[in-house]
Amino acid sequence: MPEAAPPFNREIGLTVARPQRSRPDQPSKLAPLQALVAADLDQVNQLILARLDSPVSLIPQLAGHLVASGGKRVRPMLTLAAARLCGYAGRRQLGLAAAVEFIHTATLLHDDVVDESSLRRGSATANAIWGNKSSVLVGDFLFARAFQLMVEDQSLEVLRILSDAAAVIAEGEVAQLLTANDTETTESAYMAVIKAKTATLFAAAAELGAVVADRPAAEAAALRCYGEALGIAFQLIDDVLDYSAREVVLGKSVGDDFRDGKITLPVVLAFARGNDEERRFWQRTLERSEQSEADLPRAIELLERRDALAESFQRACAYGDTARAALAGFADNPAKAALLDLVDFCVERAY
Amino acid sequence: MPEAAPPFNREIGLTVARPQRSRPDQPSKLAPLQALVAADLDQVNQLILARLDSPVSLIPQLAGHLVASGGKRVRPMLTLAAARLCGYAGRRQLGLAAAVEFIHTATLLHDDVVDESSLRRGSATANAIWGNKSSVLVGDFLFARAFQLMVEDQSLEVLRILSDAAAVIAEGEVAQLLTANDTETTESAYMAVIKAKTATLFAAAAELGAVVADRPAAEAAALRCYGEALGIAFQLIDDVLDYSAREVVLGKSVGDDFRDGKITLPVVLAFARGNDEERRFWQRTLERSEQSEADLPRAIELLERRDALAESFQRACAYGDTARAALAGFADNPAKAALLDLVDFCVERAY
Repeated sequence: MPEAAPPFNREIGLTVARPQRSRPDQPSKLAPLQALVAADLDQVNQLILARLDSPVSLIPQLAGHLVASGGKRVRPMLTLAAARLCGYAGRRQLGLAAAVEFIHTATLLHDDVVDESSLRRGSATANAIWGNKSSVLVGDFLFARAFQLMVEDQSLEVLRILSDAAAVIAEGEVAQLLTANDTETTESAYMAVIKAKTATLFAAAAELGAVVADRPAAEAAALRCYGEALGIAFQLIDDVLDYSAREVVLGKSVGDDFRDGKITLPVVLAFARGNDEERRFWQRTLERSEQSEADLPRAIELLERRDALAESFQRACAYGDTARAALAGFADNPAKAALLDLVDFCVERAY
Repeated sequence: MPEAAPPFNREIGLTVARPQRSRPDQPSKLAPLQALVAADLDQVNQLILARLDSPVSLIPQLAGHLVASGGKRVRPMLTLAAARLCGYAGRRQLGLAAAVEFIHTATLLHDDVVDESSLRRGSATANAIWGNKSSVLVGDFLFARAFQLMVEDQSLEVLRILSDAAAVIAEGEVAQLLTANDTETTESAYMAVIKAKTATLFAAAAELGAVVADRPAAEAAALRCYGEALGIAFQLIDDVLDYSAREVVLGKSVGDDFRDGKITLPVVLAFARGNDEERRFWQRTLERSEQSEADLPRAIELLERRDALAESFQRACAYGDTARAALAGFADNPAKAALLDLVDFCVERAY
């Protein structure tokens, strides 16, 4: 087992948060995975660019903007590494990793329309540049391209896994829309949303590795479990970072979720534990969307007072443990080590 | 061959246009098709309702609103009738007809967001009631559900046909966005758009009938050709009706395309044939979107002056002839007769 996650930094805030692991003298925990799949990922990137092509030139322009804008490609790397973990030596993982990234990119395009975002990964969003209409339609195109890639793979099992995932993701996105601005959202409702909208694609991406390698159902289930727990941890940390990371590090604005009235776990916990005055604060700022300049620092202060960021971080660590445990049945090898390090990477982004 | 389409009514306009065929004393040309597939369509409708279900209750609410709002189900009926034409006696056509309708409904939801429409088939659009965000996400859900239905059918050929169709439809929608407000749009650019965004799904829906019946490639190609030509005729008539039908008949506002700055064939023809003053009119109203109350009647007047509606109607008739000819190789039977009548129905909506 890798070292336990270090204790959460209680001094988290707008100014102090920084990803210590990415200091130049300390290699990123993402590095082993990146090294393991580098050659495969090159081919996936080429395939992605090739399949973005269309006689309608706005499509490769707009989609290329997002695809090229510096995403870490965590999801396709999961498929590549899981295939490696299962001893697969063929090439099917390449097309499927591209399909996974296309589904993810389609979701991002539609997300940014829904959230009316103007910044993602530090760059202007596609909807900010080309408008919402283009983002909706190019998202549809990418989704269709993903299915074309799966059809070429010729496995109904793969098609089942990813079409099921796509339906659950969409359900999660709608459910998230319904919890927006609702401070009465329960922790279980929040968890159901992030399991659907984020963890489902992580789970499917990892499971595909066992499917292409034609491994027994138990191995597919273990990889699915790994991916799901990792995805939940990843999203929990994302939600914590929205109240703590420096903009320059995360490439997104701190306080986006707050301004959008999104109800994430830190808010759920702080609201449940808050006094009447605190609840009125959350109701005013998140339900009625009445916010002033001073409200974001105040929100962070209340989250700290109620241990909400620290506890959300601890939940992420627990899901990280679940993800690590899911790999216990696999023999030790570089792919397994890289997938274990990926858990650390996802969780340690938070301090 | 059915009777030739009657001559186009030159007096077309806001007050005179009416679908003579739907007079109570004259059965609709859609009736034979409806009778032929009534039992199957009942099952498709039940399947659609069952598959709209989701623990996220907004999904069946929103999608159900659109699915139940009185669409004619032309596309799923195409699949059902084509399967019958090919002598198929199984049940695969049911799930695939539902998948086709889901893809169509997803497209409508996203279309209404893109067009900022508030009325469809005489009812408020989903985006007008539940907002654009919900429409985008529920559209994604329906698209995923369509693929789940195809996966259950277990045919990679079906999955190929409909994933290819979905990609082409999205390309067509993006291309349409790019021609919007552009009076320099050529006739061939316009034709490419409607072939992609409308005719592709008609073609796929019809082709599926031959695929489930396991008929030779030539029959699949003939049905595909029939569906494509029918879809083009259908869209051409739709574009004519936008400048001529009575609102009460069509369930959509006359002049929607004009107000949206959409460049349809009537406008392409009128612009090409217009004098300088007329071109300035089209540029002001469609390119710069500077419109007043008097502009829609004026637009209709200019379309009439340049024979643009009549000629668009004639093109639709020619595609109708192509559709009929594509069925020449099939033996005469009630399914063939119904599909031939469907061509009349689509074209005769215009007078």
